Amino acid sequence: MTFKDYIQIRERSEQLCSHLETEDFVIQAAEHVSPVKWHLAHTSWFFETFVLKPYLMDYKEFHPDFSYFFNSYYNAVGARTVRNQRGLMTRPTTEEVFDYRGFIDEQMKLIIEGGMTAEVEDTIRLGLNHEQQHQELLVTDLKYNLWLNPLLPAVLNIKEYPKQEGSGWINIREDIYEIGHVGEGFCYDNECSRHKVYLEDVQIASKLVSNREYLEFVHAGGYENPEYWHSDGWAWVQQEGIGTPLYWMLENGAAYYYTLDGKKEMDLDAPLAHVSFYEAAAYAEWAGCRLPTEAEWEIGSKRFSWGERWEWTNSAYLPYPRYQKAPGAIGEYNGKFMVNQMVLRGASVATSPGHSRSTYRNFFHPQYQWQFSGIRLCKK
Amino acid sequence: MTFKDYIQIRERSEQLCSHLETEDFVIQAAEHVSPVKWHLAHTSWFFETFVLKPYLMDYKEFHPDFSYFFNSYYNAVGARTVRNQRGLMTRPTTEEVFDYRGFIDEQMKLIIEGGMTAEVEDTIRLGLNHEQQHQELLVTDLKYNLWLNPLLPAVLNIKEYPKQEGSGWINIREDIYEIGHVGEGFCYDNECSRHKVYLEDVQIASKLVSNREYLEFVHAGGYENPEYWHSDGWAWVQQEGIGTPLYWMLENGAAYYYTLDGKKEMDLDAPLAHVSFYEAAAYAEWAGCRLPTEAEWEIGSKRFSWGERWEWTNSAYLPYPRYQKAPGAIGEYNGKFMVNQMVLRGASVATSPGHSRSTYRNFFHPQYQWQFSGIRLCKK
Amino acid sequence: MTFKDYIQIRERSEQLCSHLETEDFVIQAAEHVSPVKWHLAHTSWFFETFVLKPYLMDYKEFHPDFSYFFNSYYNAVGARTVRNQRGLMTRPTTEEVFDYRGFIDEQMKLIIEGGMTAEVEDTIRLGLNHEQQHQELLVTDLKYNLWLNPLLPAVLNIKEYPKQEGSGWINIREDIYEIGHVGEGFCYDNECSRHKVYLEDVQIASKLVSNREYLEFVHAGGYENPEYWHSDGWAWVQQEGIGTPLYWMLENGAAYYYTLDGKKEMDLDAPLAHVSFYEAAAYAEWAGCRLPTEAEWEIGSKRFSWGERWEWTNSAYLPYPRYQKAPGAIGEYNGKFMVNQMVLRGASVATSPGHSRSTYRNFFHPQYQWQFSGIRLCKK
Amino acid sequence: MTFKDYIQIRERSEQLCSHLETEDFVIQAAEHVSPVKWHLAHTSWFFETFVLKPYLMDYKEFHPDFSYFFNSYYNAVGARTVRNQRGLMTRPTTEEVFDYRGFIDEQMKLIIEGGMTAEVEDTIRLGLNHEQQHQELLVTDLKYNLWLNPLLPAVLNIKEYPKQEGSGWINIREDIYEIGHVGEGFCYDNECSRHKVYLEDVQIASKLVSNREYLEFVHAGGYENPEYWHSDGWAWVQQEGIGTPLYWMLENGAAYYYTLDGKKEMDLDAPLAHVSFYEAAAYAEWAGCRLPTEAEWEIGSKRFSWGERWEWTNSAYLPYPRYQKAPGAIGEYNGKFMVNQMVLRGASVATSPGHSRSTYRNFFHPQYQWQFSGIRLCKK
Repeated sequence: MTFKDYIQIRERSEQLCSHLETEDFVIQAAEHVSPVKWHLAHTSWFFETFVLKPYLMDYKEFHPDFSYFFNSYYNAVGARTVRNQRGLMTRPTTEEVFDYRGFIDEQMKLIIEGGMTAEVEDTIRLGLNHEQQHQELLVTDLKYNLWLNPLLPAVLNIKEYPKQEGSGWINIREDIYEIGHVGEGFCYDNECSRHKVYLEDVQIASKLVSNREYLEFVHAGGYENPEYWHSDGWAWVQQEGIGTPLYWMLENGAAYYYTLDGKKEMDLDAPLAHVSFYEAAAYAEWAGCRLPTEAEWEIGSKRFSWGERWEWTNSAYLPYPRYQKAPGAIGEYNGKFMVNQMVLRGASVATSPGHSRSTYRNFFHPQYQWQFSGIRLCKK
Repeated sequence: MTFKDYIQIRERSEQLCSHLETEDFVIQAAEHVSPVKWHLAHTSWFFETFVLKPYLMDYKEFHPDFSYFFNSYYNAVGARTVRNQRGLMTRPTTEEVFDYRGFIDEQMKLIIEGGMTAEVEDTIRLGLNHEQQHQELLVTDLKYNLWLNPLLPAVLNIKEYPKQEGSGWINIREDIYEIGHVGEGFCYDNECSRHKVYLEDVQIASKLVSNREYLEFVHAGGYENPEYWHSDGWAWVQQEGIGTPLYWMLENGAAYYYTLDGKKEMDLDAPLAHVSFYEAAAYAEWAGCRLPTEAEWEIGSKRFSWGERWEWTNSAYLPYPRYQKAPGAIGEYNGKFMVNQMVLRGASVATSPGHSRSTYRNFFHPQYQWQFSGIRLCKK
Repeated sequence: MTFKDYIQIRERSEQLCSHLETEDFVIQAAEHVSPVKWHLAHTSWFFETFVLKPYLMDYKEFHPDFSYFFNSYYNAVGARTVRNQRGLMTRPTTEEVFDYRGFIDEQMKLIIEGGMTAEVEDTIRLGLNHEQQHQELLVTDLKYNLWLNPLLPAVLNIKEYPKQEGSGWINIREDIYEIGHVGEGFCYDNECSRHKVYLEDVQIASKLVSNREYLEFVHAGGYENPEYWHSDGWAWVQQEGIGTPLYWMLENGAAYYYTLDGKKEMDLDAPLAHVSFYEAAAYAEWAGCRLPTEAEWEIGSKRFSWGERWEWTNSAYLPYPRYQKAPGAIGEYNGKFMVNQMVLRGASVATSPGHSRSTYRNFFHPQYQWQFSGIRLCKK
Repeated sequence: MTFKDYIQIRERSEQLCSHLETEDFVIQAAEHVSPVKWHLAHTSWFFETFVLKPYLMDYKEFHPDFSYFFNSYYNAVGARTVRNQRGLMTRPTTEEVFDYRGFIDEQMKLIIEGGMTAEVEDTIRLGLNHEQQHQELLVTDLKYNLWLNPLLPAVLNIKEYPKQEGSGWINIREDIYEIGHVGEGFCYDNECSRHKVYLEDVQIASKLVSNREYLEFVHAGGYENPEYWHSDGWAWVQQEGIGTPLYWMLENGAAYYYTLDGKKEMDLDAPLAHVSFYEAAAYAEWAGCRLPTEAEWEIGSKRFSWGERWEWTNSAYLPYPRYQKAPGAIGEYNGKFMVNQMVLRGASVATSPGHSRSTYRNFFHPQYQWQFSGIRLCKK
């Protein structure tokens, strides 16, 4: 790894923000999203905490309070700011956070160009993957944060609704297969260990469900009929008053959505985005199909095109056989989320370049809509 | 099936209540439990709705409002009383509910002794299994309802804390196995279809975790250290102020618990009960082990003794391959709960005689403690 | 005071319950109401705690846990059951509570017939007034508790909607007046001290607002227009979805209400009941009038008929000049409620005979509708 | 009124913000406070809505969405942004809000220098008083918004804890007095009509309660003993975990507080600030005194020094005799808050120069601590 490899990924975080106003960096519209400013700082904090402090001789931290401010889930590392108050922290300012990033990058240059052990290089690689994950969250959280504003600001164009190709179904034959990470490349702990699974015959759709298809479900009363829904999903629809995917605006027969590039007319042929697992499962039920398991998805993925939407599977997020948490604070990374969440496979238009692979296991609680999450059907 | 088969199961529901005061039948101490009165009526409503109304010529319902009152999850059948207000319904009275039960039994006698089609017999068998399920809930809900009362009433002796035998670990060898229902006997839809699974080597404990062992975890600060807990589990511990299993009372160095037979000194060698999945998983982490999957449990269960505790597995409640919901209202029975819940295997001291089998899939949300739920460890 | 005086008041509490089923005594449908069983016991506890324990030689309490169970607001006396769990206490049973009442009455007979000091007699008199207050609450809480039941049980006939006479306005002339308790009879601490107030000219309605008049306000969109409402009142209407007085049922053009004697067609000429202060004030604003202050009410009350409805005034519940709390636990009786509540004057169809006087200051938070509370307008 | 009169008051709003960072203008830490940016815009909106739109020929609004964004309580004027989401509006930016202010001022210059009717001048005067009110809220809300930040930023020095002079008690003699606005100067509708009140003898403290005196109450267990508290106040203490005035930090025997000029050691002789009505009343009870009524305060105020703290009175906020709401949207200004709030008299270190008078009636709900609110005792 060269410093150029490093800085290229780091710079992308800042490029995503180049059209924002200072105010846009501050806010947090719900507990499950974070301010842009926080993402920029937290990813730097990761390098400071897990690389610079342990491995750079005589390193002096940028600011003693930042490890408190920008810590996240890592209970083992110390106190952390209350998660739902991140959007109330006006200081450090956005400018100070950019200074912090610059400082960290300078110090990281010393480490990277000074010659690293394999252990340090592995930790840096984990830090860069961590930054890429947060780049995607930065984009999806930003969209959520700005969406409540009636002015519907336009701040970023990532082509959210691309064209999709293909049609029909691909077949998987009953057999023993292997899933999970293989080879030398980087992976998260949750992709290990590679292991055998027994699959039965199944057909998986080549194409994602389109806006047009999902709109049919809406018009057919999909949100009014409990028989399509899980019991918890129906309670969610009722309590939250859900009637469409997130960001949709159905106005006098016309369909629009909010994108980070502003309000747009809906492209009916583009792949649906911003549905929860509950919606994905209800749609599949209505369509007489089901969602694939993550094993079916992984085996099938060689034969269909993917990468524009995170695809809800019908698999709960659970450890693979022989799963081992990494020791220490980094070990909190994945294992402790292995309950109550559903696995999504694929990648999305917001995923950083170079950050997707077919064994990647993304996961969210079943009610969340704010990712670029879509639906791929399968049947028997 | 004879009427004697039928009435024997029905009578058990009433026997469980023989030491209750009228007042005890009324209350509901939390949304996830129901009043005793409601269980007694709802199980009768099932026979009225799915057997008597469709199949008994000229049947006239006992009371026109009861189908509203005693409906449960069955959205397809019509309105239902708000779940958290069941404990506010003083009418129909307990006596009227017993009259209702008597009336239903008389009518059912006409059906059963009049000669049934196989379809009707299947529905009655489902109704009796449904009644047995509610007998167990009646017991666990009753315990929860009375527990808040400082008088800690004694109303039922079901030997909640039996002795347990055995020790050591049993081994399962890596191989393809089959799990799920097989044969002619009754099963729920969620036990089908029988299918192949690929297991790796694993060792499963012959014995359940005892009160003594769990008490060690408590004394070792298990509830104060986030590293043993899932992230959602730790939030639950913090928000609810959990520090022990449900019904435990640690007083000046002595350990007691509430049982339906009153407050008792803790039997340290008896199997632990009343832990949530979060607690089960945290204990396993602390002990350097893990919980078995439901497939591991089912394969292993031939070689250890079980039946006194529902045993939390590390499997989420999801459909088996080729799972089919039954059509119509009865189809709501199981499938719609297949998200956010964890599978428990085995049976408990509160399970009705004849209502357990090794393929049975019980399931609850991971925070619930009020069942007789315990822990069996596995490793490797 | 003779034992007959005592027992006559005590018996009325039980007479009010003579048509209830055992189940009806148990429940509590909201935190601000209490179970019938609790009222019956708490009023007895008052005599046990403030009369029998301090003044009856060798008195042994009926049950050691009852002082915990049936304590109410009296923080100075010891622990008290969590207020919102009163409806979950199935034990002591209704029968045991009646036994408790009988026991207390026997012991009180010893005190009363044994010759009392003036101090003891004063405390007994306070206890009897306390019991009368709870008789009214028993009635209003019972109505609230049964109202959620779709069967709308009929359990008590107290002629809730009497005819009303009179019409026009009475005049009060600008002057200095005196209000507050005067003379030898019983009063609560909050009616003292009698003091001078300066009133301006005002006209007060001879008659209460009728159901017909209030229905006009409803039909005129009174609940949809914020300009009639206090800011807090409007928030209450919106959040709670209020659209009529409590217990009203407007069905296809016909108007009904629930009474303790069952569902009835609305008597349009009867005085309105079951409105909150917010509704009373909004109605007055809509009608171009205002609510009287408690001083205006007290001075005017000699010249209009009252006693069927508690009448909301526009006075906040605050201490009179030279107000003194009684010392000790009984001192908690009134003073600590003197914030956030509005004064009601008069009495209602549920008030016990002999328990009303023109200086009586009743008080509730402004959102409560469950009393027999009505509206008297004034202007200028 | 000259434009110079106008602009002098307007400029003060901006001077208060001169040390803020852009981020500080955005946030809202609780529903009852507003962002700085919102105050700056809302006060301009007032002039636009009530002066420029109705009275300036050919006026074109600065931005069509601003009347939606910056409307406040004025239900009669149209939709308003959800109050608890003000802190999520990053756009319009702070810079745009300053532009908006500049634009409004230019237009107002046209009106003011073009010759106004008395009606217009009255509305402008109301607008300037409205701006001064918001200047005080801007300061107190800013303090609340920044306080959650562990960095405790220093942004404004208004000498929050001045020295106080005087001692002893002043006497008021029993008599008929007059209170309420008198003369030609500006007043709010709630200060009218001037009217007679009858007061009894009373003594009022010349000095406010000091930090030292209140600290004694804290150390004496004032927050642990329910007997000093109103029932609602005690519930507030328990539920919110209150143990000191807002902004206090008691650390290892030393006492500090947060001020807008940063964290400071407590000046024990300075007047106490940041207590709720509940705390004020509990302190008075503990001290064997009481709080004055607003009439007592107004009559006494000629003879003691005031102006550094808003002083809680024991008067509920209610209309004076012959109170008339102004017609139309401006009429919503005061009347609709006349329930559930307590009157504060005086002024504070945050009050704008020229914005205080002895008849001024400030009011807040009894739980709020975030104003510079203190305690003056009275007795007898």
